[in-house]
Amino acid sequence: MCRFTFYRGEPVALSQLLTEPRHSLIQQSYRSHEREEPLNGDGFGLAWYVEQSEEPATFRAVTPAWSNRNLRELARVTRSGCVLAHVRAATQVLEVSETNCHPFKHGRHTLMHNGDVGGFHAVRRPLLDSLGDRAFGSIRGSTDSEHLFAVYLDELDRAGVAAPGMEGMAEALERAIDRVLDLADQHAPGEPSYLNLVVSDGECAVACRYVTEDPRDAETLYVARGRYQCIDGQARVLPAPDGGGAVLISSERLGDDPAWEAVPVGWWLLVSPRLEVTYRPMRVGPGFEHPPRPLPVP
Amino acid sequence: MCRFTFYRGEPVALSQLLTEPRHSLIQQSYRSHEREEPLNGDGFGLAWYVEQSEEPATFRAVTPAWSNRNLRELARVTRSGCVLAHVRAATQVLEVSETNCHPFKHGRHTLMHNGDVGGFHAVRRPLLDSLGDRAFGSIRGSTDSEHLFAVYLDELDRAGVAAPGMEGMAEALERAIDRVLDLADQHAPGEPSYLNLVVSDGECAVACRYVTEDPRDAETLYVARGRYQCIDGQARVLPAPDGGGAVLISSERLGDDPAWEAVPVGWWLLVSPRLEVTYRPMRVGPGFEHPPRPLPVP
Amino acid sequence: MCRFTFYRGEPVALSQLLTEPRHSLIQQSYRSHEREEPLNGDGFGLAWYVEQSEEPATFRAVTPAWSNRNLRELARVTRSGCVLAHVRAATQVLEVSETNCHPFKHGRHTLMHNGDVGGFHAVRRPLLDSLGDRAFGSIRGSTDSEHLFAVYLDELDRAGVAAPGMEGMAEALERAIDRVLDLADQHAPGEPSYLNLVVSDGECAVACRYVTEDPRDAETLYVARGRYQCIDGQARVLPAPDGGGAVLISSERLGDDPAWEAVPVGWWLLVSPRLEVTYRPMRVGPGFEHPPRPLPVP
Amino acid sequence: MCRFTFYRGEPVALSQLLTEPRHSLIQQSYRSHEREEPLNGDGFGLAWYVEQSEEPATFRAVTPAWSNRNLRELARVTRSGCVLAHVRAATQVLEVSETNCHPFKHGRHTLMHNGDVGGFHAVRRPLLDSLGDRAFGSIRGSTDSEHLFAVYLDELDRAGVAAPGMEGMAEALERAIDRVLDLADQHAPGEPSYLNLVVSDGECAVACRYVTEDPRDAETLYVARGRYQCIDGQARVLPAPDGGGAVLISSERLGDDPAWEAVPVGWWLLVSPRLEVTYRPMRVGPGFEHPPRPLPVP
Repeated sequence: MCRFTFYRGEPVALSQLLTEPRHSLIQQSYRSHEREEPLNGDGFGLAWYVEQSEEPATFRAVTPAWSNRNLRELARVTRSGCVLAHVRAATQVLEVSETNCHPFKHGRHTLMHNGDVGGFHAVRRPLLDSLGDRAFGSIRGSTDSEHLFAVYLDELDRAGVAAPGMEGMAEALERAIDRVLDLADQHAPGEPSYLNLVVSDGECAVACRYVTEDPRDAETLYVARGRYQCIDGQARVLPAPDGGGAVLISSERLGDDPAWEAVPVGWWLLVSPRLEVTYRPMRVGPGFEHPPRPLPVP
Repeated sequence: MCRFTFYRGEPVALSQLLTEPRHSLIQQSYRSHEREEPLNGDGFGLAWYVEQSEEPATFRAVTPAWSNRNLRELARVTRSGCVLAHVRAATQVLEVSETNCHPFKHGRHTLMHNGDVGGFHAVRRPLLDSLGDRAFGSIRGSTDSEHLFAVYLDELDRAGVAAPGMEGMAEALERAIDRVLDLADQHAPGEPSYLNLVVSDGECAVACRYVTEDPRDAETLYVARGRYQCIDGQARVLPAPDGGGAVLISSERLGDDPAWEAVPVGWWLLVSPRLEVTYRPMRVGPGFEHPPRPLPVP
Repeated sequence: MCRFTFYRGEPVALSQLLTEPRHSLIQQSYRSHEREEPLNGDGFGLAWYVEQSEEPATFRAVTPAWSNRNLRELARVTRSGCVLAHVRAATQVLEVSETNCHPFKHGRHTLMHNGDVGGFHAVRRPLLDSLGDRAFGSIRGSTDSEHLFAVYLDELDRAGVAAPGMEGMAEALERAIDRVLDLADQHAPGEPSYLNLVVSDGECAVACRYVTEDPRDAETLYVARGRYQCIDGQARVLPAPDGGGAVLISSERLGDDPAWEAVPVGWWLLVSPRLEVTYRPMRVGPGFEHPPRPLPVP
Repeated sequence: MCRFTFYRGEPVALSQLLTEPRHSLIQQSYRSHEREEPLNGDGFGLAWYVEQSEEPATFRAVTPAWSNRNLRELARVTRSGCVLAHVRAATQVLEVSETNCHPFKHGRHTLMHNGDVGGFHAVRRPLLDSLGDRAFGSIRGSTDSEHLFAVYLDELDRAGVAAPGMEGMAEALERAIDRVLDLADQHAPGEPSYLNLVVSDGECAVACRYVTEDPRDAETLYVARGRYQCIDGQARVLPAPDGGGAVLISSERLGDDPAWEAVPVGWWLLVSPRLEVTYRPMRVGPGFEHPPRPLPVP
């Protein structure tokens, strides 16, 4: 499985997010705290949105994040108000390639995934059969995550809205997950799926923490909202009473601030262009019970 | 497009084939003589058969062959009686990955390709639809060549023979090409296909030089038979009156020996386990005229 | 040997410089026009200066520039007013590593090189002996170019000026070349050196085109001054009567504008922070005759 | 630091040693048992000796061993009677390059290292100054380990014996360590050195487990002697009453056989061409107390 960090807010130096925090994603690439297996060394990827381009830029590599000089240089001089970053632990270790590194991108849309589609080897073919040509043509690699992204793009195509916005993205992702879980149920019954996901269009984002089995087995996911800064390795998310600042969604907390809150399993997390955060129960899979969600993000 | 070299015969040090000849495949990777564009630097690959394993070993890399230290070391100490070697010029340069490097392998079977399937972007989907599950599941990358290999494996599956041998392989490859050209004709009419191919099972091999357009546009391909050696950079194929020695099939001649003969366009070249070489006209595509083939390989 | 492009002026998207021009550096990486051997595929590197950091950022890779997706993405969204870009043809092909890719960087200072230090294997040790500890400690790789850079840093240290500026940089580079040529003369007499160089501190730059042998054997180098733009693959350097715009120094012309002028062999080219371009004869080596320089850069 | 495995004995498939054992070196690359930090993902390397070549072959890569397809393929079909294998945890993580991967090779001689030379940044320059030209010229990278290897080669040169054999190698390594520790004592007093080493010439080997500090802080090292095999992931070293079989020296035990014995700190381990194993106290460093060594290797 993997670890990821999403940031949306005031433009920030990528180094503030990726390399400086004591428990940054790069540290998570070799010393993850909240997984049995602490290693995520099968490549990594970034996507970041900039003003001058509709399409986000990506940087992906098959070498471990911790020793990548180019990543450190890039992070030092690059600023963005919307960033997706991902370190990979390949489900099947022999398929490490740049093409298989997250985040996946199509036009303005990006996705990253921490988890597995259960029984993907059996699901892949009917999944491909179900796609429209555009979504089919978008696939370059062999990961379950990229195939799930293609189903999401397919749902955006079916909706036929040029700029779906937060609501449209949430709907498309919900339908996509539903389609994939339905296929998994038919072709690989009993195989559990783990779906911690973030999709974004650079303005808003939709995230979820989900597992088809016992919710206690879900991969970890946290959210924090406030003014983000990292000083001397201490990542802080400070109260922003005026509602400004940033929203961070991360597999592991970047610091020990009380601002970090566990995302409840089975709930959507919606981030609006104005950085409002809303929870909403996921309506996917057969008869999933939504655990009550904790206190709202302040 | 690409360049390749095939060897079948007395076990030979790979360096004799790949690094020592003045016009070896490695030199062809940066100074190809017989193509307009002299560069084949988008990765390379080897497959070699050894006695102790049914399945050949492969070595593939995305960096250029000419600067790969591991390739030189490996070639220096490895011997084999059946070798496929390939340097790649990516048709679409942004898809360079180990998964997309030739030769492709499945069990005992290998394939390498110099050329293009015309209009592959339009052909890919119906091609995948036409495959049985095993052949479908064999595909890891995104190249036309690997998809063609999957059709070949599918034909081997349809024939249902465990050890197809030279005749079975030739039939399967002919049917595979026919299927692919038929799909290209339907979904991308008018797009030319270039199909210089070698398939092998470690014992025998089937090769062809083919183009759907004017035969004069075919990529180059040569064959030589005899005792192979390379001394001081001079690759020689010497007469072997007793029929021993080796068969070499190569996009470009490794030396200026008269033993090298151009493979006629539109003809199969069959290499038996006893190293007999037979020509046979290809029966593929709509109404292809087989140019008369030149003198037989001695 | 290698090819390089330097840009100093109005901030520009790196893609305008590196990927869009029909004869961009990326194209020069596989189809150089002005060298016998057209290939520069042994890695590449960039350095670019940004406002928010004293130290420029670098991006270096051992794979060829032409197929590097990360380079294309980065170039698309990154702007800078001072850029060094380099594609490498390894003098000794088995030493391809990121550490050996140009540009070399130390603090604010950068250098790139197209050429060779004659007999470097014999020069290296006495060169290292001659260095102060700081310059000695800056060396990470094994190229002649990085060692020459260390001598340059050593000369900056000897001068002891914190911000040497254009004049200080020119002096340090002249002394460095003189030291290196002197060592070459002692330890590898008769081996020719080719020294096309650019050094920069992000504000100004010093470049030269030099060879110890017949000036007609010098590697090519061009300079252009004006307003730079690239539209539909056409790189243009348009007149900028008010003196604004940019200065470009490149192994090969990016377009066929008359603005491009060959740098005379044996002359310094100095670029001031205000983009004034000055020529000055090089005082290096034993008894070098400076060919008369052509018309001044307008 | 790092992990390594050395094998000398009956020719064995490298896969038996490297990929099949449950606690093979590849597993140690991501889940080392006997180090605080379980990760050794900064590249890896192999050297193996073959009959047809004086010089061993090497295979080195900067990507983690666990996901390297080429390593698995190579290991599957390659046999050797003398193998050095190493997974690296870069002391300074930003210096990952093939040149810095162990084992280091020069002619017939190889070395690999698990540990650190204390204060190497201060030791490097005087160390280089002390070398003869041949040893100086052998250095390609920037690791302490390769520099230590150069001192070893320098001692072989000083002894001036063409084929030093086990005794000559042991003497040269002892003098080399003494020189390096002496330099460390002068230029970086108080910085601890960790020196678990193996050198070989393909026939015999010399190994040691050493630390300049409290012997309890030494990195782990084990030796086993007997008939080696690996069946269903179980690596076994079985009694070989006739004295045949193999000698294995490894940072971690490949299995839980009683044959594995901890190498005592401060003792040489000598392996003769006939696979006899001898202990001998190291005479290096100022006043080191040799802990009593345990029972002899049977």
